[in-house]
Amino acid sequence: MTGCLTIAGLGPGSPDQITPAVKQAIAAATDVVGYNPYVARIAPRDELALHPSDNRVEADRARHALDMAAAGRRVLVVSSGDPGVFAMAAAVYEVLETDLARWRDVDITVLPGITAMLAAAARVGAPLGHDFCVINLSDNLKPWALIEQRLHLALQADFAMAFYNPRSKSRPEGFEKTLQILKSYSDGDRPVIFARAVSTSDERTMIVPLAEAQPDMADMQTVVLVGSSQTRTLSHKGDVLAYTPRSVKG
Amino acid sequence: MTGCLTIAGLGPGSPDQITPAVKQAIAAATDVVGYNPYVARIAPRDELALHPSDNRVEADRARHALDMAAAGRRVLVVSSGDPGVFAMAAAVYEVLETDLARWRDVDITVLPGITAMLAAAARVGAPLGHDFCVINLSDNLKPWALIEQRLHLALQADFAMAFYNPRSKSRPEGFEKTLQILKSYSDGDRPVIFARAVSTSDERTMIVPLAEAQPDMADMQTVVLVGSSQTRTLSHKGDVLAYTPRSVKG
Repeated sequence: MTGCLTIAGLGPGSPDQITPAVKQAIAAATDVVGYNPYVARIAPRDELALHPSDNRVEADRARHALDMAAAGRRVLVVSSGDPGVFAMAAAVYEVLETDLARWRDVDITVLPGITAMLAAAARVGAPLGHDFCVINLSDNLKPWALIEQRLHLALQADFAMAFYNPRSKSRPEGFEKTLQILKSYSDGDRPVIFARAVSTSDERTMIVPLAEAQPDMADMQTVVLVGSSQTRTLSHKGDVLAYTPRSVKG
Repeated sequence: MTGCLTIAGLGPGSPDQITPAVKQAIAAATDVVGYNPYVARIAPRDELALHPSDNRVEADRARHALDMAAAGRRVLVVSSGDPGVFAMAAAVYEVLETDLARWRDVDITVLPGITAMLAAAARVGAPLGHDFCVINLSDNLKPWALIEQRLHLALQADFAMAFYNPRSKSRPEGFEKTLQILKSYSDGDRPVIFARAVSTSDERTMIVPLAEAQPDMADMQTVVLVGSSQTRTLSHKGDVLAYTPRSVKG
């Protein structure tokens, strides 16, 4: 008997940001696989096995999940946010491709979630209301030179930007370089949004002008949004908000 | 008495992709404002006024919503997908900024939703699993030359891409030019995903190599995803899937 593998996004943190499709998949699962803090968001129950694992073992985790599904389990792989954005969906397909025959009977479904940049943008206005790009600033899996090249091209294109994994303890210098590159291109007024743990009790969101943005305003749990040249800020009911207008004049 | 304005994303189409936060906002609203087909997704009930409107009247719609909220109503502005991605959130803030004093007491909340590119990506694998950009191909609100410039820079950056509003009846030529630009840069193997009405009974999803992509494969209800140079396809259980690996070798 062959089971199934569902790769689901738990959204930014709050239960009221989890789609009903994902809730149904949680209820139907026999096994939940994922990074420790995400598995910790699943309520334990009888006949549900939780398989939390450490960071940076995505391929092992994917193989384990595929093998359990092939053995007949209903396996749920959980990611924070959306599983297709810098998360477990790509890892599962990478592993699947290494041995298509072994897992050829496993039904695989990806269920989307509210990814961090959308939750952050909603909290502060509409900074991603026009064209934008999305860059993982971690250089664990790609050369730093490629990240720099993308930053330069994205600035030339005048995209708003969303940065995932901006800064870890083991490599704090990347985000510092990122801010230097941003400052070298643009006036210091451009809004930079630091959004941490949006929708949870630990939420901390801040908008600062680029000139005042500092590396230590971000950590690995922060998503950083940077406005384009068109992004505006306004004050409303005591809050600073940022939005990017839909129009660019010709 | 001042009411409130909530700008909510209804997700790609299926009720099981609407977050509980948005469902609660629908239940609490006295008035729903939005483009006809999105308002049509709200179940009518006593004491809920529906205010559907045509396309391209976003500013009028935003003003109407803000004024009703200022008069004490609990107003819900609905967008398909996520309201912050080429949708009503930016339109509301644009209008708000024209007369901050008039609407100074209105509480405004944005509730995120599953935007079309995430639903499409989930359906076909994980094509947005690495850095990507998001471009509205409509030149209603920006010059076509800016779109072309962004396409060239995005190709140089080797981003995967998501295109919203790729093609309307009134301007079918933009997407044809887009495909020409893509073909001029890259080998014809790169996967192009056409995803229409994902999660609804009208869903139609297709993956073709760039060399076989044709302009009439898209319409305004289609989101188009284009792989980077790294994006791979594989066959699994009779389906063609696409994913972009997390790693790029240095």
